[in-house]
Amino acid sequence: MSLSAQSFVESNRDRLLEELFEFLRIPSISTLPEHKGDIQRAAHFVEAGLMAVGMENVEIIPTGGHPLVYGEWLHAAGKPTVLCYGHYDVQPPDPLDLWISKPFDPTVRDGSIYARGSADDKGQMYIHIKAMEALRTLHGNLPVNVKFLIEGEEEVGGKSIAKFVRENREKLRADVALVSDTAMFQPNMPTLCIGLRGLVYMEWESTGPARDLHSGLYGGAAPSAVFGLIELLAKAKDAGGVIQIPGIYDDVKAPAPAELESWSRLSFDEKEFLAKEVGSTTLTGEKGYSVFHRTWARPTFEVHGIAGGFTGAGAKTVIPAKATAKVSIRLVPEQDPDKVIQQVRDFVKANTPAGVQVEVRVLSAAPATMVNPDHKAIRVAAEAFGEVFSQPTVFIRSGGSIPIVGDFARHLGIPTVMMGFGLPDDGLHSPNEKFCLDNYYKGILSVVHFLEKLAG
Amino acid sequence: MSLSAQSFVESNRDRLLEELFEFLRIPSISTLPEHKGDIQRAAHFVEAGLMAVGMENVEIIPTGGHPLVYGEWLHAAGKPTVLCYGHYDVQPPDPLDLWISKPFDPTVRDGSIYARGSADDKGQMYIHIKAMEALRTLHGNLPVNVKFLIEGEEEVGGKSIAKFVRENREKLRADVALVSDTAMFQPNMPTLCIGLRGLVYMEWESTGPARDLHSGLYGGAAPSAVFGLIELLAKAKDAGGVIQIPGIYDDVKAPAPAELESWSRLSFDEKEFLAKEVGSTTLTGEKGYSVFHRTWARPTFEVHGIAGGFTGAGAKTVIPAKATAKVSIRLVPEQDPDKVIQQVRDFVKANTPAGVQVEVRVLSAAPATMVNPDHKAIRVAAEAFGEVFSQPTVFIRSGGSIPIVGDFARHLGIPTVMMGFGLPDDGLHSPNEKFCLDNYYKGILSVVHFLEKLAG
Repeated sequence: MSLSAQSFVESNRDRLLEELFEFLRIPSISTLPEHKGDIQRAAHFVEAGLMAVGMENVEIIPTGGHPLVYGEWLHAAGKPTVLCYGHYDVQPPDPLDLWISKPFDPTVRDGSIYARGSADDKGQMYIHIKAMEALRTLHGNLPVNVKFLIEGEEEVGGKSIAKFVRENREKLRADVALVSDTAMFQPNMPTLCIGLRGLVYMEWESTGPARDLHSGLYGGAAPSAVFGLIELLAKAKDAGGVIQIPGIYDDVKAPAPAELESWSRLSFDEKEFLAKEVGSTTLTGEKGYSVFHRTWARPTFEVHGIAGGFTGAGAKTVIPAKATAKVSIRLVPEQDPDKVIQQVRDFVKANTPAGVQVEVRVLSAAPATMVNPDHKAIRVAAEAFGEVFSQPTVFIRSGGSIPIVGDFARHLGIPTVMMGFGLPDDGLHSPNEKFCLDNYYKGILSVVHFLEKLAG
Repeated sequence: MSLSAQSFVESNRDRLLEELFEFLRIPSISTLPEHKGDIQRAAHFVEAGLMAVGMENVEIIPTGGHPLVYGEWLHAAGKPTVLCYGHYDVQPPDPLDLWISKPFDPTVRDGSIYARGSADDKGQMYIHIKAMEALRTLHGNLPVNVKFLIEGEEEVGGKSIAKFVRENREKLRADVALVSDTAMFQPNMPTLCIGLRGLVYMEWESTGPARDLHSGLYGGAAPSAVFGLIELLAKAKDAGGVIQIPGIYDDVKAPAPAELESWSRLSFDEKEFLAKEVGSTTLTGEKGYSVFHRTWARPTFEVHGIAGGFTGAGAKTVIPAKATAKVSIRLVPEQDPDKVIQQVRDFVKANTPAGVQVEVRVLSAAPATMVNPDHKAIRVAAEAFGEVFSQPTVFIRSGGSIPIVGDFARHLGIPTVMMGFGLPDDGLHSPNEKFCLDNYYKGILSVVHFLEKLAG
């Protein structure tokens, strides 16, 4: 890392923070239509930020949903091109009464920036922009070619960017993508995420009798849409967390021994995980697998929600005619979403209780993604990240799904450096979301150093 | 039956109908607070109706909920006392767009009165009042002593009347109760209901993690309140409809051979029942039991509704922290509600999945009720009813629960004549509720005849 990058950050600490605060003050909540104006403001803020650091051909790209922001700087002849991705939209802040300081009034407490979007993802994506400023201030230009593609729909499914990537392969051509939207394994431990689970998200809707029936008059002889769905769902996973859908584990491969070994070296306090993160009496899941293995490299079956019949206050004695569940299966590498969807349909067909019909509607489907840790860009990123934080970078996976990483791999044929500066307790999507102030500054240094090293 | 009762009805047909229409025009929906004024109007309508037919000490009795209406006529020295029960409140009419004529604008089509409350229960309870008018017109007085107790909370649980009966045993002292709030087995078939199932109604609430968790990050290791509740509920009843709660069938006795034999003589078209009433592809329930047996004399386990986690449009990937189900068990004679509740609690304790807590809250509990068909009042009612309709009265049970019948048995020590004039397809609680016009008039004759015969 060039020492001068550090002095750039040191001498601009207050301004760099105030600029980020300005960004965080925009309540760019993508899930709520009443914030459409704020979404526009946030897109313009990003546009102005890219222009200010010398990006060219900066444009706000309208979509069917919220706009994308694009910018590029392509004057490093013969050098690699890096595609920087981030999102300017945020989750709703509710429940508001649990926030210590207001969600869109950023403040620093105990070394952290508290605000909605501070970690997810405004604070992290702004690091990329400010890294460009640092590089241009120090060198007058950038060591590599850079493209920015920033979206405003990450929290609502990111459909527009997926379409845009699919349809603009030439415009987005690059050698590697850089995404800062993940977390370090623990404070001060530089961490690259190299694996993400895929996701098949479905609605299962069951119908039973033609209308809600009186449970006194028909109870004992008439099928129930709610109970039928309950029976079916209960059959899909056993008490030990093993999915009972035939064939579902066919393509599930164990991680390489070296990767498993590296996980075993990560410190993990199960009691603390249970008490501080999960907040339950016990962990659950498949016997014989570590928590990392269960959450990073095993498929899971979850019911995210269920609704049917009478759910108001008091009592109503109906046999419900209809019920719906939101169901997902997380996928691991080599599992094919289409194959899994067919296995689900077969399972549902074979196991739907008598008198009930169950329709499976697929809302989204994306395979798992793995990045090869031996790819040059990943190796360089790991070195740079480790040097800034003065300790070796660890490689982990995440149980979550970042569909854009799969889109970059599939449509642009490039790997993604998932260089995240969040921390496990940042409270994404929760009240009092925070972002470590130090990581903001060190993040700028890490990106600067990565790009310098990548240039060779 | 005195022939003159028939001529009373004949010569007053239009007026008797118009008076009922006036009653039906009051939208006395007890479940909706905005109809509180209509509830008051309906209570006053009943009060005026009782006074008009010579009832004495007529009063509107305020309660914690909707008012009761009481009236009496006690001048038949040495004769039995009959306690007439009914309710003036109705269910909400929605969905409104499915009504052919407006729910509170009664009309006659194809021999039926269409209106919300026409069968349940305004039309049926008004029969009692008009029978008194007929008797007084014909004889100048009543052949038996009569008390009326009419409530406005039947559709919302009837708590006030239960309390009132418990606390006013002397005031309500009678030899038999008369309730017209059930249906004939089929058109023109005089039917007395002599058995009702009891009901234990519960909420089962499960809690899992401390808050909704990200299913990507925690899926595979964290318990789910929704799936835990699903697993537990699925264990409570098998695919053959047999309840799996240990001990639940201990006190279940088979109906007497004579009763079973009488059921086998009732005509029943399973295909028509399935197509016209249930509207499903197949009937379900316990093997080896007829539909009558399943719905009248076997306990059942139903989930009336379930809610938990994310149930909005689209996708959200949470592991839910909380879920609730409305659960009931219908009871048959000799099953003790308290014993059943304890069996449920034991079952829940023994079967709650790891990482989840389930709390069982009992909302109501009432045992089954049986009326002895050999009781004099029941025998007389059967004869009278049969004579008016010119065919023998059948005795059936109902799978539903009418808690007031149990309260009359328990607190007043009297049997109830459940002389219902509804028909199976009246559509109680549904759009286009109707009441057979002929049954309205013949109902008046049946009650007149019953009371005349009861006087001996």
